[in-house]
Amino acid sequence: MLINGESAAHIPATDRGLQYGDGLFETIAVVASSPCLWERHYKRLKHGGSRLGIEIPSASTLLKEIQQEIGTAEKGVIKLIVTRGEGARGYAPSKNSMPNRVVQFSPWPEYPTEFQTNGVKARVCSTRLGANQALAGIKHLNRLEQVIARSEWDDPTMKEGLMLDARGRVIEGTMSNIFMLKDGTLHTPDLTESGVAGVMRGLVLDIAQEQGLDINIGHLPLSEVLYADSLMLTNSLIGIWPVKSLDDREYDLTNLNRELISDVMRSAYV
Amino acid sequence: MLINGESAAHIPATDRGLQYGDGLFETIAVVASSPCLWERHYKRLKHGGSRLGIEIPSASTLLKEIQQEIGTAEKGVIKLIVTRGEGARGYAPSKNSMPNRVVQFSPWPEYPTEFQTNGVKARVCSTRLGANQALAGIKHLNRLEQVIARSEWDDPTMKEGLMLDARGRVIEGTMSNIFMLKDGTLHTPDLTESGVAGVMRGLVLDIAQEQGLDINIGHLPLSEVLYADSLMLTNSLIGIWPVKSLDDREYDLTNLNRELISDVMRSAYV
Repeated sequence: MLINGESAAHIPATDRGLQYGDGLFETIAVVASSPCLWERHYKRLKHGGSRLGIEIPSASTLLKEIQQEIGTAEKGVIKLIVTRGEGARGYAPSKNSMPNRVVQFSPWPEYPTEFQTNGVKARVCSTRLGANQALAGIKHLNRLEQVIARSEWDDPTMKEGLMLDARGRVIEGTMSNIFMLKDGTLHTPDLTESGVAGVMRGLVLDIAQEQGLDINIGHLPLSEVLYADSLMLTNSLIGIWPVKSLDDREYDLTNLNRELISDVMRSAYV
Repeated sequence: MLINGESAAHIPATDRGLQYGDGLFETIAVVASSPCLWERHYKRLKHGGSRLGIEIPSASTLLKEIQQEIGTAEKGVIKLIVTRGEGARGYAPSKNSMPNRVVQFSPWPEYPTEFQTNGVKARVCSTRLGANQALAGIKHLNRLEQVIARSEWDDPTMKEGLMLDARGRVIEGTMSNIFMLKDGTLHTPDLTESGVAGVMRGLVLDIAQEQGLDINIGHLPLSEVLYADSLMLTNSLIGIWPVKSLDDREYDLTNLNRELISDVMRSAYV
């Protein structure tokens, strides 16, 4: 693990990342010894930094440290954390805090290829996502809602739980974004009030647009998701997982747009 | 600073407190070399631990470390953090994670006594609090809403900002709870959907009850707060601060219940 470019395993306990979750992170797939979709990850990190007022290190600094952490590994995962740095007691960020950065490599989580072809089981979580426009969309370190939602189930065959907002609208999975197809239109939830705007979500939207699909970014009540023709989950590591069932509802996988999926999977790991 | 009972300044970067804000904290006044309202702080910490599924160290272990950190200091502040500990990648808490604890002493923030007598200036923040019943009430490490709200102003004479929920109801200050008096009834916001149930708030409610005051824990739209006879802010360090103004609205400090305030201040630092 590299902390501010040095090999280390610990951060100061006064870091605001620990004290308040005052920071951002990225989870990046590593394939062919390179971080995949790096420009998209860095762009989101910068966007989050400007939203929270945290200065993000330069892309070249981060990329150098990421490559150093990857070393000779072919495949794996890079987790990158940027916090606001150390600060005095109290919520007010000090003007001169120096961001701290953590770059950590982990092994690639080998997912069975049948998840792609046959889909995965998903459930609806009872933990709801709070709405907050100031935090919606960005990948910040306040992730207790996801931790609590992910604690709701233990069944290892259940691969994801969908989270709703207080109004019963589906926003995302605990670790993924969600897409649905209905009568040929690709729908994905609006994330202006809650949720994380995933890098893979952005890629799916761009490729769907190139393919000329009708796209709707809007409000998706659970009832509409249950009546969808097909569902898909996305994140930077899994790419796209079709959903074969959501609790008792089973989806007909022949309704999937396999061209979209294969185009995304071809672009996701470069 | 003590980390798990050892003198240290750093925690593992894989600690879930940093990764997800997966932990709890307490901020405790130290007077006469002792942590004030310790039983109340410990009780809240235990309650938060049971809500999040984090095992809280025994009171005797924590108290011993707190006393060691205080040493011979007469006055000061103890910040106590308990995280879920280290974990593998992913939101699911592992069954065998060992909580980490941080005990840190800081100097007492000397507040002018005129804050007690003449009140403080407060404002209404535009940053709203998200609603989440699973997290409401407990003092967890996901505090970005407070960080963003506290970043809204720079004026050092402005001592607190009130935060509303999405429905425009006043919930709390960025670092304090709020009470209002209206026609002799003491009102404080219901915290079942958002907010932190402060230790000093609990003390105020107990003392108000002993004094036979009419108490209403309910929903307080901003309009009602603006029409209150008087407002007060509470936390473990400040005790009670009367509010002299909320943006343009000035409050008549003769409407305060000085008996309540002095009874609370007598009980707050023992």
